[in-house]
Amino acid sequence: MHPRFLYDLDACSIRTALETVGDPWTLKILREAVYGLTRFDDFARALACGRGVLSGRLKAMVTAGLMERRAYAEPGQRKRAEYHLTEKGWDLFPALLALSQWSERWTPPPDGPVAKVSERASGRPVRVSMTADPKAARLTMDEVRVQLGPGARRIA
Amino acid sequence: MHPRFLYDLDACSIRTALETVGDPWTLKILREAVYGLTRFDDFARALACGRGVLSGRLKAMVTAGLMERRAYAEPGQRKRAEYHLTEKGWDLFPALLALSQWSERWTPPPDGPVAKVSERASGRPVRVSMTADPKAARLTMDEVRVQLGPGARRIA
Repeated sequence: MHPRFLYDLDACSIRTALETVGDPWTLKILREAVYGLTRFDDFARALACGRGVLSGRLKAMVTAGLMERRAYAEPGQRKRAEYHLTEKGWDLFPALLALSQWSERWTPPPDGPVAKVSERASGRPVRVSMTADPKAARLTMDEVRVQLGPGARRIA
Repeated sequence: MHPRFLYDLDACSIRTALETVGDPWTLKILREAVYGLTRFDDFARALACGRGVLSGRLKAMVTAGLMERRAYAEPGQRKRAEYHLTEKGWDLFPALLALSQWSERWTPPPDGPVAKVSERASGRPVRVSMTADPKAARLTMDEVRVQLGPGARRIA
């Protein structure tokens, strides 16, 4: 018997994370939120998914504390809802960046990266990496800028 | 219109990564592979999933280059298949660690972490972080050890 089965690993933090964000729609919604979308109709358009699915996922994300729902109204229109990433939601960014780096390494995008992540202060590219150095400089989300890169093709 | 819609972001590396690993079963299989499982029956037991689903996901992971299939036979038994993470598969570890860190921060496991990730050479804990410092020390998977932590409850 593999020693893994000697232990109850149910409290595993990877497992816990996957319970919240392991759903493909949740990850896709997070990606669009990083690109700056906030409105229900914009998410629906970008993801080309059913409104019921989207509504369910956004509600679950609000419940999980990843998104915050805010009301807004354009002049003369009825109130609508916007969804903004919370601190907890933004804190998933390093995981998304790690996935993105992995993908760029193993499946290089033909026209270069679609998104460019850089340090606000210096403009230097930002990477995610493993370190055991307790003094290693760590950037917070406030210090990081996400911009379109050369692989984002202008279509309109 | 949100400026996001002025661009074709289909080549986005987060999207590409999610196409390969955005499936919840794939992420769960990766987690078990990190815990050291290699055999079909062990994956089936750990994940409590149907053999058809597991077989399909493992095949897709081999095709995607995340896993390598190897034959083995125990004395007097027929040949069976083992699945080992490839370099490309192990290269997803920082993304899993980032998810795990996020989860430990926002949903601290009651008995401490189930897994402990440390630097082989120093024993110091390993973290994933964002940096723009091109000289920042980066650990490779060979330099990192995954061990059970205090939250892994012995059951047998």
